[in-house]
Amino acid sequence: MPRFQTLRGMRDFLPEDLQKRRQIENTIRSLFKLYGYEEIATPIIESMQLLTAKAGDEIRHRMYSFPDLGKREVALRPEMTASVARLVVNHLRYSPKPLRLGYVSNCFRYDEPQQGRYREFWQGGFELFGSTRPEADAETLIIADQLMRILGFQNYEIKVSHIGILRAVLEQEGVDERTQNEALLFMDRGEYENLIALVQDYVSEECINVSRQLFDIRTDDVNKALDRGRKLLQNYEKALQSLENLGSIINILRDSEADIPLTINLGFGRGLEYYTGMVFEVFVPDLGIALNGGGRYDRLIEVFGGEPTPAVGCAPGIDRIVLAMEKKRLFKEETRGPKVLVIPLEDELQGQALRVAEKLRKKGFRTEVEVTGRGLKKALSFASNAKYTHAVIVGLRELSRDSATVRNLARNEQTEVKIDTIQDQLERD
Amino acid sequence: MPRFQTLRGMRDFLPEDLQKRRQIENTIRSLFKLYGYEEIATPIIESMQLLTAKAGDEIRHRMYSFPDLGKREVALRPEMTASVARLVVNHLRYSPKPLRLGYVSNCFRYDEPQQGRYREFWQGGFELFGSTRPEADAETLIIADQLMRILGFQNYEIKVSHIGILRAVLEQEGVDERTQNEALLFMDRGEYENLIALVQDYVSEECINVSRQLFDIRTDDVNKALDRGRKLLQNYEKALQSLENLGSIINILRDSEADIPLTINLGFGRGLEYYTGMVFEVFVPDLGIALNGGGRYDRLIEVFGGEPTPAVGCAPGIDRIVLAMEKKRLFKEETRGPKVLVIPLEDELQGQALRVAEKLRKKGFRTEVEVTGRGLKKALSFASNAKYTHAVIVGLRELSRDSATVRNLARNEQTEVKIDTIQDQLERD
Repeated sequence: MPRFQTLRGMRDFLPEDLQKRRQIENTIRSLFKLYGYEEIATPIIESMQLLTAKAGDEIRHRMYSFPDLGKREVALRPEMTASVARLVVNHLRYSPKPLRLGYVSNCFRYDEPQQGRYREFWQGGFELFGSTRPEADAETLIIADQLMRILGFQNYEIKVSHIGILRAVLEQEGVDERTQNEALLFMDRGEYENLIALVQDYVSEECINVSRQLFDIRTDDVNKALDRGRKLLQNYEKALQSLENLGSIINILRDSEADIPLTINLGFGRGLEYYTGMVFEVFVPDLGIALNGGGRYDRLIEVFGGEPTPAVGCAPGIDRIVLAMEKKRLFKEETRGPKVLVIPLEDELQGQALRVAEKLRKKGFRTEVEVTGRGLKKALSFASNAKYTHAVIVGLRELSRDSATVRNLARNEQTEVKIDTIQDQLERD
Repeated sequence: MPRFQTLRGMRDFLPEDLQKRRQIENTIRSLFKLYGYEEIATPIIESMQLLTAKAGDEIRHRMYSFPDLGKREVALRPEMTASVARLVVNHLRYSPKPLRLGYVSNCFRYDEPQQGRYREFWQGGFELFGSTRPEADAETLIIADQLMRILGFQNYEIKVSHIGILRAVLEQEGVDERTQNEALLFMDRGEYENLIALVQDYVSEECINVSRQLFDIRTDDVNKALDRGRKLLQNYEKALQSLENLGSIINILRDSEADIPLTINLGFGRGLEYYTGMVFEVFVPDLGIALNGGGRYDRLIEVFGGEPTPAVGCAPGIDRIVLAMEKKRLFKEETRGPKVLVIPLEDELQGQALRVAEKLRKKGFRTEVEVTGRGLKKALSFASNAKYTHAVIVGLRELSRDSATVRNLARNEQTEVKIDTIQDQLERD
């Protein structure tokens, strides 16, 4: 048992693990570029005041919070939205809108660790500020879809709902905002009976009927879903507007020929209080956790002291995507070309070995120098086992002819080559 | 005054700032590849027990430490060495050596913020485990040198010393290890008189004389420095061995033709207790802080419970490198090719606009869609100001001919183009 361990829920990333994470981060960054999102970063430590301004209770009690040495109450960010909103208010308040921002960041929650859930976890983010219009929502859904495609997923589902529908129904029934928030939290957890129990003393019989039937709308036949919703909501004018907003988003997607595997699921919400409109999550079969999620949050920038600024975005969960890609075997082995070990035949040739290695690196070859002083036989056997493709052996005799011995480790063949042409030999091999 | 701010010493990175940091991170990662260092990552939160096992007092009192919700004493890592050593002991103990590991990580110290020093700061790292030999030290110095060259620095200095020299002198004089550590801390700060005062009651007159003269050896004439050192240390056999070790490293570098701007400065140490051999720092003129630093630490893995494993490495300071590159104007403006805004002429063409945009993205063009519903004139004026190179205007009439209007915003010229050939038009422009 080693003397020190990582803390529970925290992970070391060995090269192979990290490479997977980096592959997804790089895919997210390539989407930033294509869709015009500019990458930003914010501090990991923020004031508690900021982080609790709009976080739901659930998150608040799972934060890593503490007084810093200056006695400020601070915490590690449990999610990125508050920090990004602060950044927009502090630095980009008067920038022309729309504003497209992206990030790849780690966040911290003291959760019970389980499959795909860690106490330090990584997420990407795409945030589009300054448009209330359905085409902005459509853009977010297209990005979420493209991310899945580029990563190689063939079978996935994007579940869409609209927070405005239930909110408007409850609002019209006179339910206050705080109770609405609680109701949405129950919806997020799929606890519909608790939701009904919460509001049933305040609302009409019709409201309860309509809500129950709304929660049941789950289908990939989006027209049917919208038609059923329209019928149910005929007496709830503002809720109907929210449904039509969802309809517009879907129409735009249809016209765009994006061919996104959407299902409408009006019984689903998202845990964070700040959503105001369309919300969505991305699922793959056999994995019960969402790989990506997001939606519209039109009032958040105001909460953080900025001008009213509509916003829509999504936050792909990088750890969960890694897990899903491992399950679906979507990671391909990287082919990295030659990997060279330069071996000096005598101690006093170390400098010469470094010189030869540096020449190869200048040409872009991944090159290491034997630095343990072991003999040629041992060094070659190490190189073969560690999957080097070539050894370059630097000896006195060959050096006197400006040459070295290049050994192809797969074929066990070697040949004397002028030092200035080793790169050609490696490329030919 | 906005309602929320970043905490003191913490920073937001706007796109332009982040791009600079990313450029340096990517340069470091390209060196990982060329030199065979495999990238790893460790958690930001670790147990206090780990982080204080070998940290100097200075760092210990500037850590962000706190009890977590499970009442464990934890802290944010103030540096990477302890975590990397733990990772090696936990996961790579029995891996074939040498082992080359790299990282790009953020660390946290509650320091007084000043130029180039922040409470959350970024550093890269190259660690080579498993070789006691001078060629390993030489490799580290070559990497430090190459990093400076690739980033574009023309004028810099790599200051080299050897912790073993002073340690061995004091050891031979019977000074205990704890006092040696204190002495090295004074040396790190250049407080030579305090160092002398600390040891003078325990050591010989000769020792004090030799030490004073050693601290004065500062020259880029490395042969002269080594010769003077040899004379001074003739009665200190083990110290002489350390000096000869430094000499071997320098000989190897000379043979390798690396042409590194070395200066020997035997009056310099490094603040961290774990160094055992060669140490170095990289400086540029007019900036009093080191951009990179490192050295040999042969006993650390043992402290963390592993087999004795010699190690040498360096940790470039990314924030400081950004600062130095800004001062020297080494950041070049990125040329990013066309940046396109697709503008639908009518509301009902939003889906079509998204379709056209997606076609361009498939060809690799950075493309955004106008999502605020503003009129053509306003959209074009926004696009010109925001440095888009082209607008693609999607109208009903052109669509009926499978075309759209492509406008070159720099030249104020526009032409109708078949949608499937817009990419050719953009490439021609």
